[in-house]
Amino acid sequence: MSKTLKLAVIPGDGIGTEVVAEGLKVLDVAAGRHGLAFDRVEYDLGARRYNATGETLPESVLAELRGVDGILLGAVGDPSVPPGVLERGLLLKLRFELDHYLNLRPVKLFPGVATPLAGKGPEDIDFVVCREGTEGPYAGAGGWLRQGTPQEIATEESVNTAFGVERIVRDAFERATKRANKVTLVHKTNVLVHAGGLWQRTFDRVAAEYPAVTTDYCHVDAASMFFLTQPERFDVVVTDNLFGDILTDIGAAIAGGIGLAASGNVNPARTSPSMFEPVHGSAPDIAGQGKADPTATVLSVAMLLDHLGEDKAAAEVEAAVSADLAARGSAVRSTSQIGDALAARVAG
Amino acid sequence: MSKTLKLAVIPGDGIGTEVVAEGLKVLDVAAGRHGLAFDRVEYDLGARRYNATGETLPESVLAELRGVDGILLGAVGDPSVPPGVLERGLLLKLRFELDHYLNLRPVKLFPGVATPLAGKGPEDIDFVVCREGTEGPYAGAGGWLRQGTPQEIATEESVNTAFGVERIVRDAFERATKRANKVTLVHKTNVLVHAGGLWQRTFDRVAAEYPAVTTDYCHVDAASMFFLTQPERFDVVVTDNLFGDILTDIGAAIAGGIGLAASGNVNPARTSPSMFEPVHGSAPDIAGQGKADPTATVLSVAMLLDHLGEDKAAAEVEAAVSADLAARGSAVRSTSQIGDALAARVAG
Ligand SMILES: CC(C)[C@H](C(=O)O)[C@@H](O)C(=O)O
Ligand SMILES: CC(C)[C@H](C(=O)O)[C@@H](O)C(=O)O
Repeated sequence: MSKTLKLAVIPGDGIGTEVVAEGLKVLDVAAGRHGLAFDRVEYDLGARRYNATGETLPESVLAELRGVDGILLGAVGDPSVPPGVLERGLLLKLRFELDHYLNLRPVKLFPGVATPLAGKGPEDIDFVVCREGTEGPYAGAGGWLRQGTPQEIATEESVNTAFGVERIVRDAFERATKRANKVTLVHKTNVLVHAGGLWQRTFDRVAAEYPAVTTDYCHVDAASMFFLTQPERFDVVVTDNLFGDILTDIGAAIAGGIGLAASGNVNPARTSPSMFEPVHGSAPDIAGQGKADPTATVLSVAMLLDHLGEDKAAAEVEAAVSADLAARGSAVRSTSQIGDALAARVAG
Repeated sequence: MSKTLKLAVIPGDGIGTEVVAEGLKVLDVAAGRHGLAFDRVEYDLGARRYNATGETLPESVLAELRGVDGILLGAVGDPSVPPGVLERGLLLKLRFELDHYLNLRPVKLFPGVATPLAGKGPEDIDFVVCREGTEGPYAGAGGWLRQGTPQEIATEESVNTAFGVERIVRDAFERATKRANKVTLVHKTNVLVHAGGLWQRTFDRVAAEYPAVTTDYCHVDAASMFFLTQPERFDVVVTDNLFGDILTDIGAAIAGGIGLAASGNVNPARTSPSMFEPVHGSAPDIAGQGKADPTATVLSVAMLLDHLGEDKAAAEVEAAVSADLAARGSAVRSTSQIGDALAARVAG
């Protein structure tokens, strides 16, 4: 018996297409082992489309995306596109339109991977960041007064709702029950008292429902430091959209670099499809040369499988990556060679 | 011939009093060598005063502080005081009232000091962060709607003015001309388009007046990563109040920890006195035991001297710290033993 799921694929620009091809290669092998098939539709979004048509995310495409079971994205962006256009017109638009309120970013150092932190190893670096994805300073609420004059004022408003904060905090606690039972709230409650107050009160209220989960709080500045000095302190970190943006890049750096970091833009309520993608960009400088490492995309594929309830398949993909990383020497392999090796490991 | 300057001293709580005593010890020796004397007035501000009187910063004290040449602060805070009270009622209030628009934080790894970064040394980590200190998300502009209900909304507004951004950007470029001639703007222009636009335009305009200075831009998430992976990339970093808060803690971590980090809340226009302080807190757990390391306070004293135009004295204090750090073995010294050693080195 086999189950067929609809997968939207957005390879994007630069190395995006290359790494997505390997991700799909591994996905197919893993799916096949578990009676699962993916019906794939590819969407040409990103810099190429924008340059050709001026479109970032046409309504018709968005409507189709709403109907799939999952989305895999490579990377978008090219120097030919003005900064911000694809970020806001495509990436952030997808998060808002598909209500991706959980931006899930594992910070896990696999054995064999070098970390920039002296004296820290895989046993110290294994946590996940639950970054809020649909509000906070990313709401786009801001403006200018007297733009371009010496009297100019520019504002950005962070908008936080009880609804939005509670659902991400709940997700973090749920996740903790399946991990090491600890949740750390990161905010800046001593300065951002209004948003901070809402986050802290919500956190405390939800925490009361999870007596088995240990809680902790760090100001964002201290947390940034603890990511370096005490990464073992963290299990599940829950934080706002902008703090999460910064913290997850620090997280990527300590877990071996942005080239290995996977992420999910998740709608845990399952009212719309979730999207998985490597954290790295389109790297136009090395595009088309088979030099890109598809590992982060393959880890994103594992997250996709996990989200779809295929945790066995997800675990097999992650185990393949882990084994491959541990065995990597100094030999240089091409994008597809790494993909082949990972697919072969999953095939078993 | 001797010059006498007025110094306000706010020892504060916990280890604050202990480290300030050593800072003053070193200051006196350095001053004496350069025909300089400090007329000191001590102000009892912090947790003790708040608990005794409910006051954080009385108007009369603020008025007196306006009249001094410089301020040295130890650290304030105690678990007995609700979080946020001293931060907003004293520390931030001083920054706003005394118009400390430059929050200056050197990130310098001294020889002999351990960094958490594998493979990085003193030649890689030597830059300064010019953090804006009087606006941005710290403006305190925010509020609640329907507080405590499921429909609650909490906002925080980042307020940025052409006036405020230009003066800190100018300061950064001026500083760069006395260093390695490079300024990096850190912001999040692809998401915070209004504030980001003002910062970017201002930066570009001021940069045009400094053709000899190289410029660079990083999004705050990338910058956080580069602090770990490419600290050698930075010379002068200029950024907003909240990004600077986070980045300078990462900076402190990579330069040997918050226990060594010095900082200045500076009014470069000299319309009011500047304040210098170690970045660390009052550490109530080790207070009164002579265990605190006064080095960050002594480095803050060097920054104070430098700000007062006494760059020779400043350099002597920094050289003493540098020599002492390089010679530190595993021997444990008390707070006053370290202070004595530093004072002796300055005495020459
Ligand atoms: C590209 C950008 C809009 C995005 C963000 O700020 O969220 C990126 O940095 C990320 O973390 O996914
Ligand atoms: C204590 C707090 C208000 C302060 C800040 O956020 O600026 C501190 O973190 C700092 O960096 O000096």
